[in-house]
Amino acid sequence: MSHSTISLEELVITNLGEKKFPSPGWQRNFSADGTGWHTDGDRILLCDHTAELEASLAKGEPLPSIELAGPRKEIFFNPTQTCVAIVTCGGLCPGLNDVIRTIVMQSYYAYGVRRILGIQYGYEGLDPAYGHRPLELTPEMVMNLPYFGGTFLGSSRGRKDTKVMVNRLEALGVNILFVIGGDGSQRGATDLFEECQLRGNGISIIGVPKTIDNDLMFMDRSFGYQTAFAAACHAVTGAHAEARGARNGIGLVKLMGRDSGFIACSAALATGEVNFVLIPEVDFDLEGEQGLLAALDRRLEQRGHAVIVVAEGAGQDLVPASQARLDASGNKLHEDIGVFLRDRINGYFKSQDKEVTLKYIDPSYTIRSVPAAPEDRVFCLNLARHAVHAGMAGKTGMVVARWHQRFVHLPMKVVTRGRRKVDPHGDLWRSVVEATGQPAVMKG
Amino acid sequence: MSHSTISLEELVITNLGEKKFPSPGWQRNFSADGTGWHTDGDRILLCDHTAELEASLAKGEPLPSIELAGPRKEIFFNPTQTCVAIVTCGGLCPGLNDVIRTIVMQSYYAYGVRRILGIQYGYEGLDPAYGHRPLELTPEMVMNLPYFGGTFLGSSRGRKDTKVMVNRLEALGVNILFVIGGDGSQRGATDLFEECQLRGNGISIIGVPKTIDNDLMFMDRSFGYQTAFAAACHAVTGAHAEARGARNGIGLVKLMGRDSGFIACSAALATGEVNFVLIPEVDFDLEGEQGLLAALDRRLEQRGHAVIVVAEGAGQDLVPASQARLDASGNKLHEDIGVFLRDRINGYFKSQDKEVTLKYIDPSYTIRSVPAAPEDRVFCLNLARHAVHAGMAGKTGMVVARWHQRFVHLPMKVVTRGRRKVDPHGDLWRSVVEATGQPAVMKG
Amino acid sequence: MSHSTISLEELVITNLGEKKFPSPGWQRNFSADGTGWHTDGDRILLCDHTAELEASLAKGEPLPSIELAGPRKEIFFNPTQTCVAIVTCGGLCPGLNDVIRTIVMQSYYAYGVRRILGIQYGYEGLDPAYGHRPLELTPEMVMNLPYFGGTFLGSSRGRKDTKVMVNRLEALGVNILFVIGGDGSQRGATDLFEECQLRGNGISIIGVPKTIDNDLMFMDRSFGYQTAFAAACHAVTGAHAEARGARNGIGLVKLMGRDSGFIACSAALATGEVNFVLIPEVDFDLEGEQGLLAALDRRLEQRGHAVIVVAEGAGQDLVPASQARLDASGNKLHEDIGVFLRDRINGYFKSQDKEVTLKYIDPSYTIRSVPAAPEDRVFCLNLARHAVHAGMAGKTGMVVARWHQRFVHLPMKVVTRGRRKVDPHGDLWRSVVEATGQPAVMKG
Amino acid sequence: MSHSTISLEELVITNLGEKKFPSPGWQRNFSADGTGWHTDGDRILLCDHTAELEASLAKGEPLPSIELAGPRKEIFFNPTQTCVAIVTCGGLCPGLNDVIRTIVMQSYYAYGVRRILGIQYGYEGLDPAYGHRPLELTPEMVMNLPYFGGTFLGSSRGRKDTKVMVNRLEALGVNILFVIGGDGSQRGATDLFEECQLRGNGISIIGVPKTIDNDLMFMDRSFGYQTAFAAACHAVTGAHAEARGARNGIGLVKLMGRDSGFIACSAALATGEVNFVLIPEVDFDLEGEQGLLAALDRRLEQRGHAVIVVAEGAGQDLVPASQARLDASGNKLHEDIGVFLRDRINGYFKSQDKEVTLKYIDPSYTIRSVPAAPEDRVFCLNLARHAVHAGMAGKTGMVVARWHQRFVHLPMKVVTRGRRKVDPHGDLWRSVVEATGQPAVMKG
Repeated sequence: MSHSTISLEELVITNLGEKKFPSPGWQRNFSADGTGWHTDGDRILLCDHTAELEASLAKGEPLPSIELAGPRKEIFFNPTQTCVAIVTCGGLCPGLNDVIRTIVMQSYYAYGVRRILGIQYGYEGLDPAYGHRPLELTPEMVMNLPYFGGTFLGSSRGRKDTKVMVNRLEALGVNILFVIGGDGSQRGATDLFEECQLRGNGISIIGVPKTIDNDLMFMDRSFGYQTAFAAACHAVTGAHAEARGARNGIGLVKLMGRDSGFIACSAALATGEVNFVLIPEVDFDLEGEQGLLAALDRRLEQRGHAVIVVAEGAGQDLVPASQARLDASGNKLHEDIGVFLRDRINGYFKSQDKEVTLKYIDPSYTIRSVPAAPEDRVFCLNLARHAVHAGMAGKTGMVVARWHQRFVHLPMKVVTRGRRKVDPHGDLWRSVVEATGQPAVMKG
Repeated sequence: MSHSTISLEELVITNLGEKKFPSPGWQRNFSADGTGWHTDGDRILLCDHTAELEASLAKGEPLPSIELAGPRKEIFFNPTQTCVAIVTCGGLCPGLNDVIRTIVMQSYYAYGVRRILGIQYGYEGLDPAYGHRPLELTPEMVMNLPYFGGTFLGSSRGRKDTKVMVNRLEALGVNILFVIGGDGSQRGATDLFEECQLRGNGISIIGVPKTIDNDLMFMDRSFGYQTAFAAACHAVTGAHAEARGARNGIGLVKLMGRDSGFIACSAALATGEVNFVLIPEVDFDLEGEQGLLAALDRRLEQRGHAVIVVAEGAGQDLVPASQARLDASGNKLHEDIGVFLRDRINGYFKSQDKEVTLKYIDPSYTIRSVPAAPEDRVFCLNLARHAVHAGMAGKTGMVVARWHQRFVHLPMKVVTRGRRKVDPHGDLWRSVVEATGQPAVMKG
Repeated sequence: MSHSTISLEELVITNLGEKKFPSPGWQRNFSADGTGWHTDGDRILLCDHTAELEASLAKGEPLPSIELAGPRKEIFFNPTQTCVAIVTCGGLCPGLNDVIRTIVMQSYYAYGVRRILGIQYGYEGLDPAYGHRPLELTPEMVMNLPYFGGTFLGSSRGRKDTKVMVNRLEALGVNILFVIGGDGSQRGATDLFEECQLRGNGISIIGVPKTIDNDLMFMDRSFGYQTAFAAACHAVTGAHAEARGARNGIGLVKLMGRDSGFIACSAALATGEVNFVLIPEVDFDLEGEQGLLAALDRRLEQRGHAVIVVAEGAGQDLVPASQARLDASGNKLHEDIGVFLRDRINGYFKSQDKEVTLKYIDPSYTIRSVPAAPEDRVFCLNLARHAVHAGMAGKTGMVVARWHQRFVHLPMKVVTRGRRKVDPHGDLWRSVVEATGQPAVMKG
Repeated sequence: MSHSTISLEELVITNLGEKKFPSPGWQRNFSADGTGWHTDGDRILLCDHTAELEASLAKGEPLPSIELAGPRKEIFFNPTQTCVAIVTCGGLCPGLNDVIRTIVMQSYYAYGVRRILGIQYGYEGLDPAYGHRPLELTPEMVMNLPYFGGTFLGSSRGRKDTKVMVNRLEALGVNILFVIGGDGSQRGATDLFEECQLRGNGISIIGVPKTIDNDLMFMDRSFGYQTAFAAACHAVTGAHAEARGARNGIGLVKLMGRDSGFIACSAALATGEVNFVLIPEVDFDLEGEQGLLAALDRRLEQRGHAVIVVAEGAGQDLVPASQARLDASGNKLHEDIGVFLRDRINGYFKSQDKEVTLKYIDPSYTIRSVPAAPEDRVFCLNLARHAVHAGMAGKTGMVVARWHQRFVHLPMKVVTRGRRKVDPHGDLWRSVVEATGQPAVMKG
């Protein structure tokens, strides 16, 4: 846990100014007695472990805490005069269309905002050079979006010039920009936020963090993640059927997970049909008594089949180095560990004169392009609702997240300062080792 | 929130005695350096809201906190000499088979327990009068259970004589009994726990709380709930198609929710296709300007169709009283609000000479008899793993739960002291009102 | 089989007149060499059983045969001057939106028709008294319809005055009307056809037969049927889980099937979990040695649980007579056999002092309001394609169907002359008896 | 159509001998009056097109016809003395477990057979050198198989020595062997049949034809095919979401289809989201005005995104020749057209300086390892039922199939004499061209 590295100060949310407009009518009626509203002073602890807490208290340090999300009784923007805009950036993730839908619905119905712009194709849509015109979004247009995977607005990778984009926001008359995107995009949003603050143009920049890998910090989970690993389970179950259908059958599945193995772990736990999980956070050997190949061989001897799940970022130290490659967002492209393992496993058993049948499955984009499953839909709805509440209240430079089961506001800078990982000594990895029966250590 | 009503003392977990056996081999290897183990002193706060916390600190009160779940380095039972038993009680719930499977797998593989009994048909199976013989469970038998809804062990409602059941446990040589069941069953388990303590027979009673209605206290959620409301979404989406397919079409769906409307709320949020949600926690009128019928009429005028979701326990004050009825577990049986509403709505529009087409859908048991969805499978696995860890560590009279995103131990007495409800002033209900656009108040 | 009751003459399709326009460009290119086109002379036998055939040949009778569907090289209507209209009638059925979509797409892209009207709310939309205005349909509007159950155009039951409707078609300038509906609606379409022929107005009336019960004559199957019984399987599997989850558990599922038991049979075969199938075509007793109750009792004795599937039209002779009721289309409303059986079964075992747990499931509209499954989508696409081909070729008074695996043209009068039933001596029922193990005869 | 190449003689089914045992009791009761039984004389025409028929009749040729499947009143084998065996060969296909289940259930319950052997790992299981022991199958063991993809018995590719395998069958006392497998395996079964006939050992060899590609001749369709293309639709829909989610987005999906494009065609028709379908039966150019690349470019210009589905056997003439490779069954291994196209498309647009985003999806084994969908389950059940009826009646050297919607017996030699293809001039391909809007010809 990196709790200790965050100070209370760093968790403070920026407000554009005094909240002088009343929250629209029906919301007030809903809790006329004053209950049910959160103020900016409603906060929960970042760390609630009693021993750590007592240590902090003993030292007299202020306890890091987080602002709770929720509608504010008074808001900063005058809804009928407000223009909000939405942009989706980076790779697809289940739930993008849900977030778009709810931002539109919530702005329109809960606040009465009438000008809602859909920026097309990610940050490209804020750079006039690309010639994309924003869509004027209405409830009618977005009503059925969640039936479809992908993003209605289109997306793109990479960032554009900050000043050019802020110019564009000003020219369009945008008051609040909702940026749905991963850590690269949120860093871009941070730049937008800082430029807007510098100019004092009163534009709010609100992020909805997106990462199919579930690896953003200080979040219970990221939207789309549950749907994605559920989709991944189909591939695992298929691999299991293939493995059982042949003598010495091996099913090998490569799953998303560039820097973290959450999807691989969850798919293994959910199916109960995986014997080896390989993730970026835990090194393993191929060769040697403790290595994967020998362990796999033992498994085949005992049970006649095996299923392996490998996250795309696992075992990169094993793959022969080649020229460094970056994608458009600047992420390092990985060597294909799946194909590499397939060939090495086949080669090993050939050298052992042992006939095996290995089936390799790479579900690739099929796990991220599906519509969100019901629980994720509810989760997206809440993230989007609270993003609108936060934006209307005049908050900026922040993202909406869930922490310890409550929706909260986090400064953008905090969530992009690192990536969450599977802790090799934590309970998730332990549960994987328990559930798979794989050796706790596969490294000499 | 009822945090304030719980004292630290009430949250203390009972231990059978000194933990004198080392946790089995591979577990120690997993974190040989000592990281990754929880002790009984690892606790998290029950309430982490900073203002409440400061108030408590100011008063000098001890802060209520909860014991974290997890394997203990030393355990109470000698695994190879231990006999564990599993019983499932009450109505079906998605995930029962997952919990059974993991308790068996975890006991067998992670601890080396070799005698695992499956008690058949709920508490009946502990009463010799019924003649059910326990099954000797093996990994092979339970491996594929999660493909199936229901419970492999069978279930029944109602309780049996505590002494008779404890006699039976002693006769069978059971050391740990895992009770998977709802609040009635956990109250029964509490009786077993107390009788065992009285006798000093060293039997551990560990509960895995089950409630499809998601209404147990001090839990983030209950297992099976996500799967259940996802299944309910099919009924809602069907009702929506029916409503849109006819002039003045009305889709009316009755969903589970005896005392709490969580399923109804979540199904409405997840589909985005519901216009009225009726739950036990929020009273409503039928007649009058503010009543449901007039609101429904207005909706039809404006949009030509409507979808209503009603929890089975909603509007009980509206249904003509009849003789009190109880089910075998002593739960009050409700009048059928769905059929009642169907008839009243049809009657109203007939009296208005307005032609409507109402389609009534009661998915009933179909939402609870499905296999668990992937996320629920992972959740069940964790509950079951931690139940086994707790039992082997010699804990008793407790249930495993998740609180603020961590798995914890809670005394049985605490979780059965009341039922969780949808807070009419809280964020869940607000999100429903926002998402449906229904009147915040439908009562004069 | 009622083959013998149909003469060749009755199978002749009416043509509006000479086909003097060439089929649009790309279609000609597709098979420039003349292969791949069907002429009106391409026909297949109605009956291909060799013995029956030889008998007919011996008698010198002309063999009844059916016109094959498909594009014609020359067509009757000039596409660019043609207006087509679509109407959906009666209850929902999976695939309605697929048929609408493909009629629009095929008319627009394959023929170049530019005026495509969507008649709203069934035949009501052709009666000006209701004030529904037709929608001008475009490919863009219908592109995504198959993601949704129901009908985009809305529907209604019952017929309207034929002359009024033909007046309306003429006033709208409609050249081809596609009627998607059940046998009541196709009888209405026959009236429209005859009135148009009488007036000589050159309007083509083409039917796409719809019946979720799969009970139209001379058709391999009806669209939506596969999807519907697949949806029904969920209810059956749920009932099975409920039945197995209790001592003497009984799962009772009521499925659609007013006059025929196809859905009940198929759901039983597909799940392999049903012990008794009750359909309208096969009478059964409740009481007596051979009756259902005794058979059910024996099943419980032997296996401890049972699953019963009952079609809504089964056992109507058992239910106490009450006043005859008709729905708006004039179909007789059935007594609720499901509720009746539930109560009788519970009563029987109570009288026997045998504790049983019966769970009753009525999935009702949920099996007809789902989107079409992939195979049904292809089937709907083909029906719709061939409907457009037929209409453009100037055919009228006919429906598109599939017979012995080929798409064909059938006169409307032929398909509405009776309803297809499960043959109690045929292979489908035999397979049900074999698969369930139920007594071949349950009547004294 | 290759009807004309088959003579009536070639369609005759071999019978082992006189049917002297009565079909077991309950079956007789089922149709005591004699209706509902088929005799060997019940046949349907292979070709029922009236014009072709009249031509044949005019020439005085006997009309090729096919024997109908179904139980026979008298049977060849004495059920209680009969041993049946089941073997599954070749690649996985949805429904294998359904066929196994029903062969066991039908043999056991409908005929009273008590010795049912499951041969493990395909033909390997009949070669003692491999040391696989047959499983003794019971209803209990196979009851739940259809919940799982794959084959419970395991499978393998390739054939073993015919004499060795017949020796093994004799040694095991097998009377009827059911071979579930593709055309290679059915050729192997033909050899077994001929060897058994030569030896006069009275062993019946019955085939259940399996091909996920739907390419066996004289069959309406093959089992598992519907399920497989439905699974493929997920990949296509995912590709569509990816394509729409990016500027100039291209989704490229490779699907199974070694020699025939049925899966690719059906997936395109079912989704309505594909713009180009490439199959082995229809050649296409990459370059040139009419080629794929130019057509794709035009599509992007007009619509901004495109989806391409390519069958694995398509465009093999375009891929640079390399050394011939065969799999263990002797099937030619194809070059990977998917990867080839991906690279060529990316290269083309790079050379055009046009930024595109291509996402490549290869669902590979995931579409064949799923459990069968409900309609396929019913289909498998019927194939298996009729296989058992045929075997018990003493038929041999034949497969069970469906033709023109009826279940029939076909000599093994007939179905393995070629592979069914998509007819480039037929209605299936026409429907694809109509539905995708792709150029009818993409070859210069």
